[in-house]
Amino acid sequence: MNAALHGVWPACPTPLAERDDLDEEGMRRVVRFLVEGGIHGLWLFGSGGEGVLLSDKVRRRAVEVVLEEVAESIPVLVGVSAEGTGRALARYRHLADLPFAGVFATPPFFYVYEQREIAEFYRALAHEIGRPLVVYNNPYAAKVGLEPETIAQLTEVEGIVGVKDSSGNFIVTQSILARVRDVPDFSVLQGFDTLAAASLLAGANGIVSAVACFAPRLPVELTEAAQLGDAERTFVLQRQVTELLDRLAWDPYSDAAFIRGVKVCLELMGLCSARVAHPFAQASDEERRSTREALQATVGLAEIVR
Amino acid sequence: MNAALHGVWPACPTPLAERDDLDEEGMRRVVRFLVEGGIHGLWLFGSGGEGVLLSDKVRRRAVEVVLEEVAESIPVLVGVSAEGTGRALARYRHLADLPFAGVFATPPFFYVYEQREIAEFYRALAHEIGRPLVVYNNPYAAKVGLEPETIAQLTEVEGIVGVKDSSGNFIVTQSILARVRDVPDFSVLQGFDTLAAASLLAGANGIVSAVACFAPRLPVELTEAAQLGDAERTFVLQRQVTELLDRLAWDPYSDAAFIRGVKVCLELMGLCSARVAHPFAQASDEERRSTREALQATVGLAEIVR
Amino acid sequence: MNAALHGVWPACPTPLAERDDLDEEGMRRVVRFLVEGGIHGLWLFGSGGEGVLLSDKVRRRAVEVVLEEVAESIPVLVGVSAEGTGRALARYRHLADLPFAGVFATPPFFYVYEQREIAEFYRALAHEIGRPLVVYNNPYAAKVGLEPETIAQLTEVEGIVGVKDSSGNFIVTQSILARVRDVPDFSVLQGFDTLAAASLLAGANGIVSAVACFAPRLPVELTEAAQLGDAERTFVLQRQVTELLDRLAWDPYSDAAFIRGVKVCLELMGLCSARVAHPFAQASDEERRSTREALQATVGLAEIVR
Amino acid sequence: MNAALHGVWPACPTPLAERDDLDEEGMRRVVRFLVEGGIHGLWLFGSGGEGVLLSDKVRRRAVEVVLEEVAESIPVLVGVSAEGTGRALARYRHLADLPFAGVFATPPFFYVYEQREIAEFYRALAHEIGRPLVVYNNPYAAKVGLEPETIAQLTEVEGIVGVKDSSGNFIVTQSILARVRDVPDFSVLQGFDTLAAASLLAGANGIVSAVACFAPRLPVELTEAAQLGDAERTFVLQRQVTELLDRLAWDPYSDAAFIRGVKVCLELMGLCSARVAHPFAQASDEERRSTREALQATVGLAEIVR
Repeated sequence: MNAALHGVWPACPTPLAERDDLDEEGMRRVVRFLVEGGIHGLWLFGSGGEGVLLSDKVRRRAVEVVLEEVAESIPVLVGVSAEGTGRALARYRHLADLPFAGVFATPPFFYVYEQREIAEFYRALAHEIGRPLVVYNNPYAAKVGLEPETIAQLTEVEGIVGVKDSSGNFIVTQSILARVRDVPDFSVLQGFDTLAAASLLAGANGIVSAVACFAPRLPVELTEAAQLGDAERTFVLQRQVTELLDRLAWDPYSDAAFIRGVKVCLELMGLCSARVAHPFAQASDEERRSTREALQATVGLAEIVR
Repeated sequence: MNAALHGVWPACPTPLAERDDLDEEGMRRVVRFLVEGGIHGLWLFGSGGEGVLLSDKVRRRAVEVVLEEVAESIPVLVGVSAEGTGRALARYRHLADLPFAGVFATPPFFYVYEQREIAEFYRALAHEIGRPLVVYNNPYAAKVGLEPETIAQLTEVEGIVGVKDSSGNFIVTQSILARVRDVPDFSVLQGFDTLAAASLLAGANGIVSAVACFAPRLPVELTEAAQLGDAERTFVLQRQVTELLDRLAWDPYSDAAFIRGVKVCLELMGLCSARVAHPFAQASDEERRSTREALQATVGLAEIVR
Repeated sequence: MNAALHGVWPACPTPLAERDDLDEEGMRRVVRFLVEGGIHGLWLFGSGGEGVLLSDKVRRRAVEVVLEEVAESIPVLVGVSAEGTGRALARYRHLADLPFAGVFATPPFFYVYEQREIAEFYRALAHEIGRPLVVYNNPYAAKVGLEPETIAQLTEVEGIVGVKDSSGNFIVTQSILARVRDVPDFSVLQGFDTLAAASLLAGANGIVSAVACFAPRLPVELTEAAQLGDAERTFVLQRQVTELLDRLAWDPYSDAAFIRGVKVCLELMGLCSARVAHPFAQASDEERRSTREALQATVGLAEIVR
Repeated sequence: MNAALHGVWPACPTPLAERDDLDEEGMRRVVRFLVEGGIHGLWLFGSGGEGVLLSDKVRRRAVEVVLEEVAESIPVLVGVSAEGTGRALARYRHLADLPFAGVFATPPFFYVYEQREIAEFYRALAHEIGRPLVVYNNPYAAKVGLEPETIAQLTEVEGIVGVKDSSGNFIVTQSILARVRDVPDFSVLQGFDTLAAASLLAGANGIVSAVACFAPRLPVELTEAAQLGDAERTFVLQRQVTELLDRLAWDPYSDAAFIRGVKVCLELMGLCSARVAHPFAQASDEERRSTREALQATVGLAEIVR
């Protein structure tokens, strides 16, 4: 699967029905929309996917539905983030028989762990799970970032095939890239849409993108421009991405703002409802209105909004 | 039960056997030791109890064992902290038929929630659980602190009977006390051992204490001195508590340091092993040695250490 | 002078005329008001005094005026905080022939210094200045706090006679108190009004107070209650102080809010104008209105406001 | 001058003799070395230049010496950063008759100012000084960052000709670039060596560089590659810069580490002593040794070290 860890991976939302149940039809529509948009893989149950908030039953059903819709056209990575090793493995075991391509996890959260403890967490996961594992550097979720040196050590663990860097710090991204660039079959994905151009030009293999969830063409084109080494065009497209995000005015460091914001976009596009899991506040009419305006002001998106 | 929310509540550790299983005999010995030490209640599965790391099965067995040993002599509060409302309720339901006095929870974690969302979380818990609920202000776990104003609003929710303040900020503690002092049957517990004296003298009802786990007499005496309004003696005892913690040299803002540290103390006292849950690093020989020295240098503790 | 380092020290504002010039008559009225209020010393050019913003000429004139009005009735400490040793000494030398009791300084600012560098800064100041020096722990100004251990080392330096702790962290205050309590003739002053009661009961010698600038009676009474060991009354008075600050609604961690806020109070009392130094924003009509309401709602202050 | 605000501007150190006096000969040698290295301008008294620690007399002499050595071959910008408007203008007036190209300043420091206050500070400076002024976004010095929106407003002020962004946050840099790209004659300089490639490719006009102080060729070549749009080569050179910094192992967020580190490099190259201003700790033998090793391990630098 490892060669597949490149290109654009939407940080896929999980459409919800009442009582935090799965909106199956919404999920199917979203996945079909994304696959048609030319994306290269699906990142399920990341921080944008509310995976940690959903019941094991809902999670399992969501994976089944996604795999059916994807029908092996692109790889699907599934998040098993949890407070510690045991809890993460328990989350995996509920899904263990399903044929997704691999898993990812943030460092264990709730407690603040040392680097050696986080490394041990990933080693245990890689050993127990036995399919491709992507390390997910998310200091906003885990309170502590993975040091590039820790990531470099983890490249040596069998089964660990890549890292998604959501540090939001391009100095950190470059430091990771410098340390893993000579490791065969190890991929680096950028987790901040605003750092896509710089990261891809500097050698990242792909991006995990919130914008790709509702406007997949834009990051796909950006990724292609970067692959051609066309710095000018890559940054032109980056400015379009950033301008869109500025218009949407989601707090750049708030996962919650992104979760709700992406779902409002998808609702405006008629794909699923904007419902978010308890205790997140539901979208207000004002958020719907300002989101509609932001999308309508964006070339290439105006037509998709209801 | 509410009248019981006073005095000294050890932040009870969960003794572990291999593979994060429960050490039943250790758990029984620890509980007996604490009850004999004169404590007023047991705080189970707080951040010091590794509750979020343990399987539902281990959690259930631990509660059963504790309730058997306590035999209704003191109230037991059980933590159901989780990433969101659904997950917290799921943790509760595994224990729902057991006769503990009440539950507590930190704000939902992993994501950063707004005050109104956290309030909604506690309202949902209080409504669904139907037994006494204590709000647990822990900004280190939840990344965001409860504002005193939010706590004031929550005093009006049926079933919410108190707050444990682990802000570590005495200005916040005082602000909470000022806002809830006229609410009947609402208790404030201080969660930092180093702020016990000031909080009790300022009107707090009790403390949740790490020191009480291995040296219950010291915080019990401190609490009694404070109840008599004897500021001088209360601060003398506070200095003894703080001096002991200084000797132990646990990072004051690291839950992990306290978890492992308390367990090393209990191991040195012959009550249970120092084992901590995966992926926490296990105690080193050096930690055992320095902990032994710290305890032996402390009046009243020297004799208890092996 | 050292015995004088106790009781209530207002963090004295510097009344200003146009173009950041000194309002001499305002300064005289404020000092007379404070001395009559029963305070024990004057803290000039602290962070509340805008000392770092004023020209050497204005600073010198302010000290002269204050010393004339005080007429040796109480000691005056003068701040020489600056970016480094040379700049702090230069600030001192402009005042070196004036008969104030001693000086104080925050750690050097702009850069982030190591503990050993900050200690060296204070050693150099004590050596060069040759009059009593008070260390001023203000991590908000200096970006880095003085560790209690560093303060303990500085007690051994000739000429260093005390510390003002504006950490805002009562755990730090207690840690300082524990380390210096056996040092003869070394004083600890609490710099947060909201931590006055707890600090004095725990052994602090006095407070540097913003509230004392416009309502000196309240902290004076609080200090007296604490000296008598009357914890209950001390915390009753603390609640009055805190309630007043809550009504004033100044951001507790913003020096600027306190500077402007105190000056608005003094303006409402007819003592000096609310003018602040460039580039601080001047007080708005709304701030004047809400401040008047806050003071009028406070027992003992209603009558003093115009 | 404005067209000159491009290319590589070393964050020039100020060589010191005993008692924080100027090492004139060292200063001359450093400036000659830099001019010969192909740099495009000199950034004097930035955070790397210890400008805020030096006496007015030393500052004046340093500017005179630099201007003599430069002999109008390249522009010189001089820092007047201070705690507030009056102090910054006072620093300027000591130099006002000297023929440097323009000035720059961080936001006022010590206090935490609001955006509107910082904007007012720059407006007052631009108005009073009457020569080109560069805004210097340095949240590490000023504790608060300039919001891109504030910078956009300041582009309209007569005399303000550019911004140096030392946020260390490439998202912020891009946001500034997006807002000022259509402003004629307004320049953006990147202040972090590690963000040079990405910033220049994204449209920044130049860099203020610590590496350029001792290895000017590397950033000069990087800048040239970026101007040609050669993303691959630009990032190859960026990796060389970053690898060099990694070897030097200076704390990336510590001005002090960079100040001392750059001076140790220059000392090893025989240009000036490594002395830093009081109360900075002087370089240790260990720092000299490890710095020599780092330079000797770097292609193109090995030969310059003694």
